[in-house]
Amino acid sequence: MIGRDLLSMDDLERAEIERVLDTAVHMQEVGLREVKKVPTLRGRTIVNLFFEPSTRTRTSFEIAGKRLSADVINFSSQGSSLSKAESILDTAKTLDAMAPDAVVVRHGVAGVPRRIADVLRSPVINAGDGAHEHPTQALLDLFTVRQEKGRIDGLTVAIVGDIAHSRVARSNITGFLKMGAEVRVAGPPTMLPPAVETLGVKAMTRLEEAIEGADVVMMLRIQRERMGAPVFPSVREYAARYGLDREKLRYAKDDVIVMHPGPVNRGVELAPELADQAPSVILNQVRNGVAVRMAVLYLFAGRPRGAEGD
Amino acid sequence: MIGRDLLSMDDLERAEIERVLDTAVHMQEVGLREVKKVPTLRGRTIVNLFFEPSTRTRTSFEIAGKRLSADVINFSSQGSSLSKAESILDTAKTLDAMAPDAVVVRHGVAGVPRRIADVLRSPVINAGDGAHEHPTQALLDLFTVRQEKGRIDGLTVAIVGDIAHSRVARSNITGFLKMGAEVRVAGPPTMLPPAVETLGVKAMTRLEEAIEGADVVMMLRIQRERMGAPVFPSVREYAARYGLDREKLRYAKDDVIVMHPGPVNRGVELAPELADQAPSVILNQVRNGVAVRMAVLYLFAGRPRGAEGD
Amino acid sequence: MIGRDLLSMDDLERAEIERVLDTAVHMQEVGLREVKKVPTLRGRTIVNLFFEPSTRTRTSFEIAGKRLSADVINFSSQGSSLSKAESILDTAKTLDAMAPDAVVVRHGVAGVPRRIADVLRSPVINAGDGAHEHPTQALLDLFTVRQEKGRIDGLTVAIVGDIAHSRVARSNITGFLKMGAEVRVAGPPTMLPPAVETLGVKAMTRLEEAIEGADVVMMLRIQRERMGAPVFPSVREYAARYGLDREKLRYAKDDVIVMHPGPVNRGVELAPELADQAPSVILNQVRNGVAVRMAVLYLFAGRPRGAEGD
Repeated sequence: MIGRDLLSMDDLERAEIERVLDTAVHMQEVGLREVKKVPTLRGRTIVNLFFEPSTRTRTSFEIAGKRLSADVINFSSQGSSLSKAESILDTAKTLDAMAPDAVVVRHGVAGVPRRIADVLRSPVINAGDGAHEHPTQALLDLFTVRQEKGRIDGLTVAIVGDIAHSRVARSNITGFLKMGAEVRVAGPPTMLPPAVETLGVKAMTRLEEAIEGADVVMMLRIQRERMGAPVFPSVREYAARYGLDREKLRYAKDDVIVMHPGPVNRGVELAPELADQAPSVILNQVRNGVAVRMAVLYLFAGRPRGAEGD
Repeated sequence: MIGRDLLSMDDLERAEIERVLDTAVHMQEVGLREVKKVPTLRGRTIVNLFFEPSTRTRTSFEIAGKRLSADVINFSSQGSSLSKAESILDTAKTLDAMAPDAVVVRHGVAGVPRRIADVLRSPVINAGDGAHEHPTQALLDLFTVRQEKGRIDGLTVAIVGDIAHSRVARSNITGFLKMGAEVRVAGPPTMLPPAVETLGVKAMTRLEEAIEGADVVMMLRIQRERMGAPVFPSVREYAARYGLDREKLRYAKDDVIVMHPGPVNRGVELAPELADQAPSVILNQVRNGVAVRMAVLYLFAGRPRGAEGD
Repeated sequence: MIGRDLLSMDDLERAEIERVLDTAVHMQEVGLREVKKVPTLRGRTIVNLFFEPSTRTRTSFEIAGKRLSADVINFSSQGSSLSKAESILDTAKTLDAMAPDAVVVRHGVAGVPRRIADVLRSPVINAGDGAHEHPTQALLDLFTVRQEKGRIDGLTVAIVGDIAHSRVARSNITGFLKMGAEVRVAGPPTMLPPAVETLGVKAMTRLEEAIEGADVVMMLRIQRERMGAPVFPSVREYAARYGLDREKLRYAKDDVIVMHPGPVNRGVELAPELADQAPSVILNQVRNGVAVRMAVLYLFAGRPRGAEGD
């Protein structure tokens, strides 16, 4: 994968996903040492190019890069309108001229990381673009499920919320399907993408139906500002129908795990007690994010392009 | 102290304060070397979690961490209202999941670092919370006094200004009293906390009386936006009565030193010539801040919890 | 040059400029290695003190510092009015007390870096001050020309645009003249400084005349907000008369190179095809910026003052 871009979960075959997850196991061991650092990327430069505010993802990539001994350069800009596409590309090309070994890009508009990747020599890692993709989130979710369940193949995964506007949903659907899971999605009809079943998932409009017998329930963060708009329910209505609490969770398997990409709107998509306690694995997801991003940086930026790979 | 939080000067016994100061002496030697770096915290991660703007304190902690070879992650947010307490705790728990070795917290509301510490596994260092505490400022002030005077025990220390709203005053009162100094505070009556003498200090409303025979005069920064409000004097009036100049300084001992946590309002709490020249030791305080914070990070985050400490 | 400030190209003699460029050749080799890092400034602290927004210059200095193994501290502030000169100096003195090995300063007001340098013990590197100077930009431009042309002495260099308000123009005029080039400047009469020819350049008001037979054409970035004001042309009018395209470029030598400090206003000072393709060397300038700034940091901050230099 050295020198390639990671823009979408479509970019990875199943064997490559497994390679990322296996590598992340080793990276997680590094995080348990007293000296949480390996010299793998010493002398490499990683640029975090964030056109959208972010806390956990930016910090997670920064810690991942530093634990690999890379130099990490943070570059934030709020100029995220598509009309500024030209200046975004100029900025990216300028940074590329400084010869970074990877550029991690987040942008509010779908497709911007791909356009940047088209003009850059460095590998580009998509850290979230609009409602499009967030592949490292899907990889850390897969890692977390495999760690908790011992496998992904054959599991039933329910993803609940605003499926149509969620990059987390989109990347996870692709990822879990590739790894052999059954994927169901659920949400209000206006929050389900048209023809979503052509992706290979089962679509439902009742949460209880979607999570029935599920091994994994992944709740999506609701964008409160969308609530109450003509085609969206009120927050109260949403929470009543699509919020998860212990009562509704009985529909799932006894050993179900509950996931959420964070930050949680407590009392909306998740009851407070589910946000903080088992069977939720939300903080495990965060913790695993560092290990998975270390794996991604190592595999995509770890060696010079042109050198013999493996 | 390994693995403990440093939230308040009340958390430290006298022997522990002395241990911090003694360690800082060694750390200061590191700062004089050509290579100003020791491998003590290599592979450790320190998160600077600042919910309030800061320049010197954030930079001081960042330089301290880097001189100990730690990876330092800066995380700033202006969302500092108490109503957002839940999201602040979520942010802190998220960062904690990434397994930092210390989290340095500044927040505009008193008590937030303690609430954060309650839910975090990492040691939390309070870098200033509202009008409550700023323990590393007190430690660097103690260090500076000991360096200049050779001792703290038995000295007379006058703290002048808005005592009631100053975290610097509060932490220093506790620190100097623990170390055996006599502490006097002075300010307009509305700027003295009720029953301040129960803390063990002498309270005065005249500057001249407070600094008479003092070994150390610590002037507090005035919040100009408070001036002129119903219960506060005008800036001009404040400067005339509670501003320090060479004339008034004659009341103190001949070898008095003048301290200020910075930045100075020249011509308000300090006459310009006192801000920049001896007997003021303001830049020494800044310089010592790096060494003292190196000592704090080393002592509180230096070794794995569970390992045999000392 | 150890321990000296770099505030202006006037601070450097020709032999010193050559030394910077020669050193940058070695630094560029570091950037081509798999491990793009040398231990030269290990344990040194470099502060980026930016009072004006900047992307490429700040990032370039940060990467340069990190490739030399220095600890780089970023300090940004938007408080850039001259009335705050006192607080700027206080900030600078505070940072100086933390014993950095170099302070890189950018400010919107001419002369601020010099005022800061007057009160600091650390070497100060000017990273751009108002319309005054931007010496490291001139050095990287000189480096780029020497790399492309094999020499600077005897070349004809045309600088086109708002000469009067450009720190890039001012520093480059001094630099190219010192290195033996012939320098012409061109722009609307209101954009030429009074008595500009006393600097040793030829001033013209027609672009075609200025670039006739030129080896190097350097186009300046236009400040769009100035356009259309009483004494300035409209953007359209400016582009027609002072924008460069392939047609006009025929006046220059066949092997001319086109430079621009970036970011380019495409279709204003440069036709789009010239912004992205040969003979433009704009991305080379960016790339060389890292090597040249590594050389500057090494030469000015590399050794303790007082040690035997060379």
